Amino acid sequence: MTQTPTQGTQDLQELIDALGTEKVITDPASMDKYRWDRAHDPDAGMPAAVVRAQSTDDVQTVVRFASGRRIPVVPRGAGSGLSGGSTAVAGGIVLAMEQMRDIRIEPLTRTAVVQPGAFNAEVKAAAAEHGLWYPPDPSSFEICSIGGNIATNAGGLCCVKYGVTTDYVLGLTVVLADGRAVQLGGPRLKDVAGLDLTKLFIGSEGTLGVITEITLRLIPAQRPPTTLVATFPTLDDSTAAVLAISSQMRPSMLEFMDNPTINAVEDATKMGLDREAAAMLVVQSDEPAEFAAEEIAAIEKLCQQHNASEVFATSDPEEGEAFVVARRMAIPAVEQKGSLLLEDVGVPLPRLGDLVSGIAEISQRREVVIAVIAHAGDGNTHPLLVFDPADEDQAQRAHTAYGEVMDLAIELGGTITGEHGVGRLKRPWLADYLGEDALELNHRIKKALDPENILNPGAVLDPAALTDNA
Amino acid sequence: MTQTPTQGTQDLQELIDALGTEKVITDPASMDKYRWDRAHDPDAGMPAAVVRAQSTDDVQTVVRFASGRRIPVVPRGAGSGLSGGSTAVAGGIVLAMEQMRDIRIEPLTRTAVVQPGAFNAEVKAAAAEHGLWYPPDPSSFEICSIGGNIATNAGGLCCVKYGVTTDYVLGLTVVLADGRAVQLGGPRLKDVAGLDLTKLFIGSEGTLGVITEITLRLIPAQRPPTTLVATFPTLDDSTAAVLAISSQMRPSMLEFMDNPTINAVEDATKMGLDREAAAMLVVQSDEPAEFAAEEIAAIEKLCQQHNASEVFATSDPEEGEAFVVARRMAIPAVEQKGSLLLEDVGVPLPRLGDLVSGIAEISQRREVVIAVIAHAGDGNTHPLLVFDPADEDQAQRAHTAYGEVMDLAIELGGTITGEHGVGRLKRPWLADYLGEDALELNHRIKKALDPENILNPGAVLDPAALTDNA
Repeated sequence: MTQTPTQGTQDLQELIDALGTEKVITDPASMDKYRWDRAHDPDAGMPAAVVRAQSTDDVQTVVRFASGRRIPVVPRGAGSGLSGGSTAVAGGIVLAMEQMRDIRIEPLTRTAVVQPGAFNAEVKAAAAEHGLWYPPDPSSFEICSIGGNIATNAGGLCCVKYGVTTDYVLGLTVVLADGRAVQLGGPRLKDVAGLDLTKLFIGSEGTLGVITEITLRLIPAQRPPTTLVATFPTLDDSTAAVLAISSQMRPSMLEFMDNPTINAVEDATKMGLDREAAAMLVVQSDEPAEFAAEEIAAIEKLCQQHNASEVFATSDPEEGEAFVVARRMAIPAVEQKGSLLLEDVGVPLPRLGDLVSGIAEISQRREVVIAVIAHAGDGNTHPLLVFDPADEDQAQRAHTAYGEVMDLAIELGGTITGEHGVGRLKRPWLADYLGEDALELNHRIKKALDPENILNPGAVLDPAALTDNA
Repeated sequence: MTQTPTQGTQDLQELIDALGTEKVITDPASMDKYRWDRAHDPDAGMPAAVVRAQSTDDVQTVVRFASGRRIPVVPRGAGSGLSGGSTAVAGGIVLAMEQMRDIRIEPLTRTAVVQPGAFNAEVKAAAAEHGLWYPPDPSSFEICSIGGNIATNAGGLCCVKYGVTTDYVLGLTVVLADGRAVQLGGPRLKDVAGLDLTKLFIGSEGTLGVITEITLRLIPAQRPPTTLVATFPTLDDSTAAVLAISSQMRPSMLEFMDNPTINAVEDATKMGLDREAAAMLVVQSDEPAEFAAEEIAAIEKLCQQHNASEVFATSDPEEGEAFVVARRMAIPAVEQKGSLLLEDVGVPLPRLGDLVSGIAEISQRREVVIAVIAHAGDGNTHPLLVFDPADEDQAQRAHTAYGEVMDLAIELGGTITGEHGVGRLKRPWLADYLGEDALELNHRIKKALDPENILNPGAVLDPAALTDNA
């Protein structure tokens, strides 16, 4: 790519004049925290400016300014991304949505109209005030933004029963690459007039447009769950149990932690987890009480049929929540052990066992600790590769293993990313996963919507493939 | 558009040589039944050929043949479409999928891999053999194809709780405009690698590619429902009851029939419906028995609070099914009264009352019987405009009213089509509904994927807007 972003930066003053110094940050020290998300991309550039937009108008002003001048625009939610989707680009503009956080709940239509900077947890809380529920629940729900969730089509723990972000988005306001704002969808539960562009923008990681308002579908509050925790002596037993459960019933949560994860969580919590277990499942049913008891009893039976060492069930939601919290804190707990490379591979459910055992094998071969947590019921795993950044050789082996895990997933008919997005970190594997024709379709759509590649360039798609003669 | 489809038809022999006379029909009399769907578009052309494809390869052969020669290709499922989405184009090829009907259920992954010609009911039946369920249920489920359901992102009766077609599609094989076959998605429950092209093709009505294989997500079999039927003395009471129910709970069905519909169904069934009622609701709960009883009791209370004349509830699934069958037969029952123009407008739920009363007003003003049925819980209505085709003046008034109903829906913040698709019949209203910018985005995507506009030209988008200099 021969993008020359600096050509337009001398007239940043025009942007400052339009938006004010409150909104436009150009001081490098103040911009620093806007350069990385949780992927800590070492290639992050120093932007020309960070704009803290307060409205769709502000976003339009920024994109109009950038368009034509070919200045890259990197939209940024809460910066909790795990694939480098909001890594700053040198000389570009980081478009921070952190001040656009309005949430309006409309109980009659069971919808929420929200700005992209609002946290997932804030939307959940606002909905709960009306007895309503926004289901998608990434583990990071307390620190991630709805805009980021839309950008990555985020998943979470309850998705095994309730679906992912895209299933709850009815409408979007999107600022296009030329600065126009367009309304797609809206508070209509069914709408098939024209192409389904709303869905196209969901999961597009800021590469097709900047989302400035979202209409979400809410459902009635979830019932208090009944929780089951089971430990297994071998990985195979645990994944066979997952498959047996998934093929027969529909729990509202079906989570997995392997031995290194259990130990890291136990180190952090001292809650008395079984340090010897090869794996642990956390399963919930949110059916009405009596039926939940039946469902959990059936799941208990399946766990025992698959050699569970211990099974514990509770209908006390708080007691159950302790295990869910343990599962949610797995990433920070493992992070205590070293730097992390965070994977997000998924496979068709019958290959879950092969994926998990294959990852254990990569861990041994590369001599890198890989702690595996998984939204097991979705076949979506998060292998956490742990390394000492001061140990160059180990860091290198971790990076090699990171790629090998994706290669393994592809080999097993799986995906390189189930819910975190491609961002910049996983871009090199996208072609292998999608194949030439599907990748080329991605390029065609991107070129049709952002011909100058100013929107989040370098994320998801290779800029070299997007030039006019590519 | 200056499409000159005939230029290539003299070498149809090449296509016949490639596929055989079994698959390629060119005899006008035999082609006749492939020219219309249930929209009976008077502008249907005489195609150059009908190809009855048996495989993805066959479809590729047809599209490769058509591409370059600029011959229009109109994909066709079961021909049950209601918007003219598979109206034949003069000199084009109708690509009939009626012989591609394989269904493979994979119980372990709870998925179905199906060919587009399989009927919705056949997929449901195959899933049921494994204790599984494919929820989307257009009223026409016994005569409509899964391919057509994907093409229109079809809805149905259970969608109020279980979502629409797009929510159940995990993967597609699509033949692109240049004849390449591309695999999008697959049997992975979560996958965010690259743009969400699977969702883009769903609802694209054959204008972006030809779908030749579909991977569907299945869920465990539905529990036997408890059913409530309520009649109301006024339309306002009934729609207020719908809103009260929807904002508080999540029934698995919430259907509406107005007085003309009740009477048409009663004429056909003599089942003892209340001919005096202004409206009737059919509501179901599929929660576990005890909880369903609670839910239905709460709904009964809400109906009574909104002045229901009569409420009847039954936990006997067969007794309940009789009312669902009555609802499903509404269209054929009303069709006994004359020719139909079938609407499919939807509004945000709080405007349902305004929509229904506005339609009654149009009916009076234009002196055209409009029988209204609705997936009320989705805000999606099917006004059925009844006219005598021999009465030219009445036919004209019906057509005027047909447009006025769409204008009304747009005015109320609603859509011109909730689940039937734009096809050819509703194309003139698409621009008014989408607005200039969203429409232009549709054009850009279409041009990027089908630059010669050979795929279902004239459906959804105006060919004149798709020429190179448009």
